[in-house]
Amino acid sequence: MHALQQFIEHRRFSQFIIAVIVINAITLGMETSPGMMAGFGHWLHVLDTAALAIFTVEIALKLVVYRLKFFRDPWNVFDLAIVSVALMPASGAFSVLRAMRILRVLRLVSIVPSMRRVVAALLGALPGLASIMALLVLVLYVASVMATKLFRDVSPEFFGSLGGSAFTLFQIMTMEGWADIARELMVVKPWAWVFFLGYLIVSTFTVLNLFIAVVVNAMQEHVAEDLKAEADKDEAVAHAERVELLNEIRALRAAVQRLEAR
Amino acid sequence: MHALQQFIEHRRFSQFIIAVIVINAITLGMETSPGMMAGFGHWLHVLDTAALAIFTVEIALKLVVYRLKFFRDPWNVFDLAIVSVALMPASGAFSVLRAMRILRVLRLVSIVPSMRRVVAALLGALPGLASIMALLVLVLYVASVMATKLFRDVSPEFFGSLGGSAFTLFQIMTMEGWADIARELMVVKPWAWVFFLGYLIVSTFTVLNLFIAVVVNAMQEHVAEDLKAEADKDEAVAHAERVELLNEIRALRAAVQRLEAR
Amino acid sequence: MHALQQFIEHRRFSQFIIAVIVINAITLGMETSPGMMAGFGHWLHVLDTAALAIFTVEIALKLVVYRLKFFRDPWNVFDLAIVSVALMPASGAFSVLRAMRILRVLRLVSIVPSMRRVVAALLGALPGLASIMALLVLVLYVASVMATKLFRDVSPEFFGSLGGSAFTLFQIMTMEGWADIARELMVVKPWAWVFFLGYLIVSTFTVLNLFIAVVVNAMQEHVAEDLKAEADKDEAVAHAERVELLNEIRALRAAVQRLEAR
Amino acid sequence: MHALQQFIEHRRFSQFIIAVIVINAITLGMETSPGMMAGFGHWLHVLDTAALAIFTVEIALKLVVYRLKFFRDPWNVFDLAIVSVALMPASGAFSVLRAMRILRVLRLVSIVPSMRRVVAALLGALPGLASIMALLVLVLYVASVMATKLFRDVSPEFFGSLGGSAFTLFQIMTMEGWADIARELMVVKPWAWVFFLGYLIVSTFTVLNLFIAVVVNAMQEHVAEDLKAEADKDEAVAHAERVELLNEIRALRAAVQRLEAR
Repeated sequence: MHALQQFIEHRRFSQFIIAVIVINAITLGMETSPGMMAGFGHWLHVLDTAALAIFTVEIALKLVVYRLKFFRDPWNVFDLAIVSVALMPASGAFSVLRAMRILRVLRLVSIVPSMRRVVAALLGALPGLASIMALLVLVLYVASVMATKLFRDVSPEFFGSLGGSAFTLFQIMTMEGWADIARELMVVKPWAWVFFLGYLIVSTFTVLNLFIAVVVNAMQEHVAEDLKAEADKDEAVAHAERVELLNEIRALRAAVQRLEAR
Repeated sequence: MHALQQFIEHRRFSQFIIAVIVINAITLGMETSPGMMAGFGHWLHVLDTAALAIFTVEIALKLVVYRLKFFRDPWNVFDLAIVSVALMPASGAFSVLRAMRILRVLRLVSIVPSMRRVVAALLGALPGLASIMALLVLVLYVASVMATKLFRDVSPEFFGSLGGSAFTLFQIMTMEGWADIARELMVVKPWAWVFFLGYLIVSTFTVLNLFIAVVVNAMQEHVAEDLKAEADKDEAVAHAERVELLNEIRALRAAVQRLEAR
Repeated sequence: MHALQQFIEHRRFSQFIIAVIVINAITLGMETSPGMMAGFGHWLHVLDTAALAIFTVEIALKLVVYRLKFFRDPWNVFDLAIVSVALMPASGAFSVLRAMRILRVLRLVSIVPSMRRVVAALLGALPGLASIMALLVLVLYVASVMATKLFRDVSPEFFGSLGGSAFTLFQIMTMEGWADIARELMVVKPWAWVFFLGYLIVSTFTVLNLFIAVVVNAMQEHVAEDLKAEADKDEAVAHAERVELLNEIRALRAAVQRLEAR
Repeated sequence: MHALQQFIEHRRFSQFIIAVIVINAITLGMETSPGMMAGFGHWLHVLDTAALAIFTVEIALKLVVYRLKFFRDPWNVFDLAIVSVALMPASGAFSVLRAMRILRVLRLVSIVPSMRRVVAALLGALPGLASIMALLVLVLYVASVMATKLFRDVSPEFFGSLGGSAFTLFQIMTMEGWADIARELMVVKPWAWVFFLGYLIVSTFTVLNLFIAVVVNAMQEHVAEDLKAEADKDEAVAHAERVELLNEIRALRAAVQRLEAR
């Protein structure tokens, strides 16, 4: 058991898994080329099955070694989910699952430490954004209901249903083609610019503040921590010097008290 | 009266109101679906009327309890305005008001503390942006008058009137489709690129500085406050140590003075 | 002379000029409406001429009072230039000058202190951006020459001449419609994506760093100055306390020396 | 040899080379104009050859003077590569090389110190971005394979091959025309919005964090260094004062010890 743990925690083992992921990524990419499939389709499938087998064995080994502790690391759960999806039968209604096999390549993130840190940092910023994202969703929902009621008859293509309006308003939030949609509506409803301007300003300002929250968070984590560490170092030196002063004075006081005692 | 105040300030009461708002949001969303309206239209209207009744009673209770103090909290005024709009007759020329009923859902912002803080922070950034927004409006107005005079004959679709030019120039400020509009004009007026380039650079630079003002404000509020708090803590420790030094020295001096007095 | 200076430096005088500018801005806006021109065209022209006369007198007075010192304030030169342009004959080849009369409204910037500060801050950021703007112009020039040589035959509409290429590449830098232009070229020259990708990444990265330079500058001016001021205040207190310590010790030393001298 | 080194390191020499680069830039720009080529084509070619000859001699001199040390400065290697490309025969399959002659103008960056610093700063930010850029490439690759498998049949124009999908997804990352592509697909595959929304949010969030990494880096380098320098200066003063205190106390202690010794 201990030997097995040493085996799967060995640097070579994870390097081997990384190599398998990269090779698998390449074969999955080659599968998208009809020419390649005609020539080497069989071999690509063999390699893909082999990679999947290796991943399955790897995860099985980890489950055997770590047992329930395996599930404590969310990256393990991520790996397990991705491999499980790949093991499902990929036929008929599940043809989308075939396309999702490429998600296996995302295992690179869980296995390369530097990418793991980057993704952890990205995800770590999310909780602090919850309120402002909720506000954004609320603004999008309210605007979608309003736009559907106001513009459904004029522009069914863009505002025909609640879902369609939500998609269009998300598009407008990205500023992509918003003016054409607005101009089309303004032919029939000349006051439509009020809605579009209001929505654009509110949603852009909210998105801007979402971005700023991420920036402030990163600044606090990097620049402010850096400055604090420097200040702590300075303060430690100053403290040591003040302690030395205090000791000198106490020694002096002892001397004076000896004098006084005479 | 005091019992009533306890009732409307109880956590359960605001949770109930939140539930009513969420249910109302869902029914208003369902009203946009013709299928839903055909099937449950009557029930949706009943639920909507019930929600409105609850809101009306809620605000009436608050008015009874807080009286004029009710109007001191701007969020209360916001709630009152939204419910008042919903109580107006929604027929004929007021059909836009029907679409505005969904604004009621924005009451979520006033009732959920974390969203209230986010919106307060967004609005709090506005006063500091007044000068730069005035500058932006001035640039937009000047450019609109110029564009109308220069390009009205060539491109009446985009620059036919002062309002039309202002809309087009706002669109160009968002960089959406600006090149197509400019190219169309440059066929007739080849020097038009000077106007567009100048306007793009000036307006983008102003908008950039608007954004930076928001970022600087957020940095000052979060990162700088954080650093100052840390520095204050360090300084408090240093101050305490210096006071201790001073006390030691004064005790010492007293001892020396006693010596001297002998 | 002194009375004249008091007159033109009086708060009422500049308030009067602000009012004239605003009224002039409105009449110039109304002039863009054919309906208004048909009805009140004569009056609008009278008001415009009156405003121009007032501005001319204002600047003449300032020239009389301040003489050569007038030219030391760049805002005065700005005012003079704008009014001079308005005094030129606006006919024939000078019809563009008629459209430029609206620039007079920009005098608001020079006369309202808060807008003056904002614009001064915007312009103050420019010198620090010189190197990076020169780099951007260099990248644009190099890419324009290359694109003209490579794509002139395939896409004369976008890359027909050096100027045309520069305009198209500026457009691509704003990310507006870049993909359509690239796809059109890639039909004939499939490797064109290399040029577009390279240009997009280099120019966007340069523009990003231009923006960052502005942000860093603003941070240094606001957040860092703020933190430094706070630190200076703390340090002044600490310094005072250390001086007090030193004085105590010196007094003590004098006492000990008196003891020693006995 | 020493005289030669003094010659090529003289301020006049680099000013002369800058002049040659600028003149060459202008002649290369003029070559793009058919009118210019018809009139002065011969002279432009002569000037271009002369400039190239000067650059070749310049680099040859530097090679003679610095020998292998020449290759230690990456800017020298950059200059050498650019001039070498220009010396290759520019005919037939090498016609692209003719267009690349303009890259010579980039030598301005290596010869003007302020631009050198700016480019060095831009490039200096790259290593810290490696992980996040690798993540971006990974996301792009995974999304390309998925999109090719899912959408190839419906939209061969945009997702026909792995390369085509990668180009389209890069385009979507720049938010340019993404909604039109999505809408076209959603006609046949109504669930396609899930893919586009997911991809847009993940890729934009990653790009945002790439930008933030650059901003944090710049802040740490400029604002934080500035604050640290200020703090160091304050701390040096405080340290000197504490040392003075300590010296006073030690002198005092010596006096007390003398008293005690009596």
